[in-house]
Amino acid sequence: MTKAAQTVAQVSADDALVIFTPSGKRGRFPLGTPVLTAARQLGVDLDSVCGGRGICSKCQITPGYGEFPKHGVHVYEDALTEWNAVEDRYKSKRGMIDGRRLGCQAQVMGDVVIDVPPESQVHKQVIRKSATQRDIVMDPATRALYVEVAEPDMHEPTGDFERLATALRDQWQVEGVEADLAIMRRLQPVLRKGEWKVTVVLNKGNHDAHPRIVDIFPGFHDGAIHGLAIDLGSTTIAAHLCDLRDGSVLASSGVMNPQIRFGEDLMSRVSYAMMNPGGDVEMTRAVREAINALAVSIAAEAKIAVTSIYEVVFVCNPVMHHLLLGIDPVELGQAPFALATSGSLSLDARELDLTAINRAARVYVLPCIAGHVGADCAAVALSEEPNKSKDMVLIVDVGTNAEILLGNETRVLACSSPTGPAFEGAQISSGQRAAPGAIERVEIDPATKEPRFKVIGCDLWSSDAGFAEATASSGITGICGSGIIEAVAEMRMAGLVDQGGLIGGPDQTGTARCIADGRTHSYMLHDGSADHGPVITVTQGDIRAIQLAKAALYAGAKLLMDEMGVETVDRVTLAGAFGAHISPKHAMVLGMIPDVKLDRVISAGNAAGTGARIALCNVAARDTIEATVHQIHKVETAIEPRFQEHFVNASAIPNAVDTFPELSQIVTLPDVSFNTSGSGGGRRRRG
Amino acid sequence: MTKAAQTVAQVSADDALVIFTPSGKRGRFPLGTPVLTAARQLGVDLDSVCGGRGICSKCQITPGYGEFPKHGVHVYEDALTEWNAVEDRYKSKRGMIDGRRLGCQAQVMGDVVIDVPPESQVHKQVIRKSATQRDIVMDPATRALYVEVAEPDMHEPTGDFERLATALRDQWQVEGVEADLAIMRRLQPVLRKGEWKVTVVLNKGNHDAHPRIVDIFPGFHDGAIHGLAIDLGSTTIAAHLCDLRDGSVLASSGVMNPQIRFGEDLMSRVSYAMMNPGGDVEMTRAVREAINALAVSIAAEAKIAVTSIYEVVFVCNPVMHHLLLGIDPVELGQAPFALATSGSLSLDARELDLTAINRAARVYVLPCIAGHVGADCAAVALSEEPNKSKDMVLIVDVGTNAEILLGNETRVLACSSPTGPAFEGAQISSGQRAAPGAIERVEIDPATKEPRFKVIGCDLWSSDAGFAEATASSGITGICGSGIIEAVAEMRMAGLVDQGGLIGGPDQTGTARCIADGRTHSYMLHDGSADHGPVITVTQGDIRAIQLAKAALYAGAKLLMDEMGVETVDRVTLAGAFGAHISPKHAMVLGMIPDVKLDRVISAGNAAGTGARIALCNVAARDTIEATVHQIHKVETAIEPRFQEHFVNASAIPNAVDTFPELSQIVTLPDVSFNTSGSGGGRRRRG
Repeated sequence: MTKAAQTVAQVSADDALVIFTPSGKRGRFPLGTPVLTAARQLGVDLDSVCGGRGICSKCQITPGYGEFPKHGVHVYEDALTEWNAVEDRYKSKRGMIDGRRLGCQAQVMGDVVIDVPPESQVHKQVIRKSATQRDIVMDPATRALYVEVAEPDMHEPTGDFERLATALRDQWQVEGVEADLAIMRRLQPVLRKGEWKVTVVLNKGNHDAHPRIVDIFPGFHDGAIHGLAIDLGSTTIAAHLCDLRDGSVLASSGVMNPQIRFGEDLMSRVSYAMMNPGGDVEMTRAVREAINALAVSIAAEAKIAVTSIYEVVFVCNPVMHHLLLGIDPVELGQAPFALATSGSLSLDARELDLTAINRAARVYVLPCIAGHVGADCAAVALSEEPNKSKDMVLIVDVGTNAEILLGNETRVLACSSPTGPAFEGAQISSGQRAAPGAIERVEIDPATKEPRFKVIGCDLWSSDAGFAEATASSGITGICGSGIIEAVAEMRMAGLVDQGGLIGGPDQTGTARCIADGRTHSYMLHDGSADHGPVITVTQGDIRAIQLAKAALYAGAKLLMDEMGVETVDRVTLAGAFGAHISPKHAMVLGMIPDVKLDRVISAGNAAGTGARIALCNVAARDTIEATVHQIHKVETAIEPRFQEHFVNASAIPNAVDTFPELSQIVTLPDVSFNTSGSGGGRRRRG
Repeated sequence: MTKAAQTVAQVSADDALVIFTPSGKRGRFPLGTPVLTAARQLGVDLDSVCGGRGICSKCQITPGYGEFPKHGVHVYEDALTEWNAVEDRYKSKRGMIDGRRLGCQAQVMGDVVIDVPPESQVHKQVIRKSATQRDIVMDPATRALYVEVAEPDMHEPTGDFERLATALRDQWQVEGVEADLAIMRRLQPVLRKGEWKVTVVLNKGNHDAHPRIVDIFPGFHDGAIHGLAIDLGSTTIAAHLCDLRDGSVLASSGVMNPQIRFGEDLMSRVSYAMMNPGGDVEMTRAVREAINALAVSIAAEAKIAVTSIYEVVFVCNPVMHHLLLGIDPVELGQAPFALATSGSLSLDARELDLTAINRAARVYVLPCIAGHVGADCAAVALSEEPNKSKDMVLIVDVGTNAEILLGNETRVLACSSPTGPAFEGAQISSGQRAAPGAIERVEIDPATKEPRFKVIGCDLWSSDAGFAEATASSGITGICGSGIIEAVAEMRMAGLVDQGGLIGGPDQTGTARCIADGRTHSYMLHDGSADHGPVITVTQGDIRAIQLAKAALYAGAKLLMDEMGVETVDRVTLAGAFGAHISPKHAMVLGMIPDVKLDRVISAGNAAGTGARIALCNVAARDTIEATVHQIHKVETAIEPRFQEHFVNASAIPNAVDTFPELSQIVTLPDVSFNTSGSGGGRRRRG
């Protein structure tokens, strides 16, 4: 008996005290108890894929030695059994941090304090870059489990599958597992090849669904299990490829939604479906093909097998939702905008023709809130949690349709506003989606009217030394959504654009960068023609597109504020479906959002995409959002006369002093006017 | 207030006593309560598809009037509200038996006795022809429900599907209904076409599965809902087409299993799969195609739309089971004969490529008992219930593999015995499957040695007047399983065949019907050559095939008796997979079954097919058999040396006096011997 064990002899001669940190959970165990066993009995969050067989090394722990006054114990050097051959083999083969032990190998021989490092926790947290964003606690629907299955016996004639199910129940407490015929077909050879030891990939499903075996490998298989979180927008399809073991994002990528050729905004796609028999089928096929292609390319980018993608979570607006599912969206084009289904959906990927990924992959589609307020808005709510906010928060997710949420823990309102694709770089003369080479930040010197900018994929400003070299590979290809927002706002601040949105000519602005372009003017942002690159300008049409988009956004926000009965909001969260964060200052200069203290505006990145990631990495979050959507009250912009009023009133770019008291303390907006004959003149590209 | 109501005024001035027969359930209800409502509140089994809207007429009841001393009430003529316009319209349009009322229209106005006729009961019993067989209580997984769905409302933005689910919950107490994407796609147009009134076909699934919408029709749809119960045998595929509303069998039909070309018995098919890469896939495709074709032909025979088949229940032996599911049966060919899966399976018909029937049709496959004792044996157990027997019962289901059960309420044993296809008319020189034109009954006059017979589709004996005319359309085409059993037994009783199984020559038997056939003799049963029909003989080879088959059957039964430790059984149930019933007397003459009093042998028809029908028509029976299979102990014939011993000893046709004391009291078996040099001579067609 060890010294440590002797000190607790009065409690039980054979038991040792085991204290786990950081949880603080503690208990007494007979000598010889493996640390992993102790952890499980105490409900300590210690990972294991192989179930304690010294194969997976997920259960690494760090024993502490010496005096622990806080816990009232002294841990002797022999508090655990000695480093053994299994640990030695693992360390020499794959490496292990000094001081670590395998929890399944090390047995308790005396009082001991055991630290569980973050990477050994099952419910490890995904560390997020921004402090303003929620951490995700890992609890994915899909995980890999190693099991040892009883061999068949003529006298106990159960099927191989039934013995596998028993093993999963006994070794992993997984009850009532199911498998489809494709798994049944592979089961017998895989079990025999693995000599009755297999690793199954299990999707535990939502609610009361039976857990389902989606893949099976002979022996221990440490192959990664991946998932895709997809924000399926009208203009762009943005995807995060996540490692479902730790939640890390291995790649983020996006493509244009190929449905754009059937109509740029939602209503034109609904019209296309109404006017063209089979048009909905065409659009469904197009988007599913694009998602397959995106899965292949994002897997290639991350250098993983596309068939290791076992789960896809979708968030999207209602029209995209129906077209993805193959449901004719015609009812969404007319009051009362009835959804075919508003609840969440759990599907086989095959049902959506997502054939590129694993053939047994599952799909989860977040619930919709209403006919015009979709699963993307639900995802924003999941990510940003307005329903848990103490103060009145306005959340704006900028896309071709903006999802807008307003509320606090008492009440949350939501609407969708048809901003059009300008904020995503579409319908902009030099616009492109956010990708390397796209201008994403812009500054214009108010004195010289000269611009400088940053492009995606390079940390330097265009005025910095070495910029040309750094951007040589990507080139400077166009301007993305956040870039055009900054460009227009900077042009307004530099006095190149007046309150009505007109670009002044060179005579009025004093810069040769304002060039005549038909009956209007354009601002020259970058001239790459000497190097056979593009000429990137901001045209009068671009300004008009941004004005329409921001007016729609602002009008939506105001409508919710009317409904809520508030004149102001306490804080604003700006989110963008894809690409760089939107600059709060520039958004306010443009009048995208109501007046609020600038330090109360945060930029949250792709909130809808984050919501999709949360649902991918934490299955309980699905229950959460399914409950939450029922508490969110939808406000319908399409039939509300006040929306039109707000929209018309919001088309001008604000004169800070007149409109936004807070804004006038941050920036000075020159009092210029380039067209005394009214606000016409700009070529409207859409209206 | 009515007179009747006044008499119970002391209990409640406004309540009337309602007594239902035959259940005897009774309760008091406020005046004006519809009879259907009263029935539901009392849990009386009164059907309704339309939910009490006077559309479906399923809730017909018969009120009784006058004195009911047994119930202590007098029912006055005005105990129900008057015959109304809805009832009038229904009766004039579709007819209704005089004295009947619609339970949803007639309201209680005084004490009343209400009889629920059998056809108005939800759980109506299917009346079976034979008193020895179990009745089936209707409780099918699939049924049609009429619902009225709330219209969409912009201010209550749920999806159409969610409102349908709410309607099903509120109007039919169906919780948590699900639907696949194909239903979601059709939902919106169907709801609008039906003006928010629809009939859904619902499959409630097994256990804790969510009920699933498998079809949807606008308005009230009284279209029949059909199901197929399929006994998938090695040689024949037998199907019953059932109306799932009342359990009636609309048609029974069968085809040869096309897998026969890959091997006549199970082990040769397993060998084919082992020796030919992709051979299992070939066999799977063949059987699925045959099932599709069978579904089409049986639907045509019953004049129903094949797409109205919403459910298929399969019973089959383990090799057929695996090949149907697309699982390589190779493991079933070698010890320990491990099944890939032994549990029951609930599948989409599409997963089995059953594309002929409704696209949303579901499949239920009964559980297997062990590697050689399949779902067909489970179905026999479900139909014949040996586990509920007070006395020791032997149940023999004769097919290419015979399923044998022995036991009582204490213990049940099961085995499978490889009889070969002779009992199904295959491997018999003039053999054919049971179909019109096949000889199914045979008698041979012991004095004249002249035969007479019956063919399927005609009730006359061949010796009766008018037989030729009655069989002109079908012809006399061959001999089926039950026919060959009777023919061989009759030949033995007539002294044409000796104890060893040899057919005597004309000199020995004294009849010219025993004709030389190579080195042996054949018995001429029917010579149709004058009318260009077939010559139907029983050859020495036929006798040998039957001897092998019956020896296997008998050996299996004896093995179970050994295991059970009994010398005799109390009763025997003989079942055949397809076609006419097997004659107990002839089976005993052949020595197919152990000696038992003849009145303790019953012929149960297709017990496996009946088990499939029970599982099709009563979803609770699925739970029953899933529990029962775990209580049945399998005995493995393939590795049991005593099986071989019994087999060898059983190949002779018994000398009644020596072998079966009981048999000798029923028939006299001539003591003849046609070959003094031993039991050789017969050409063995398989061994």
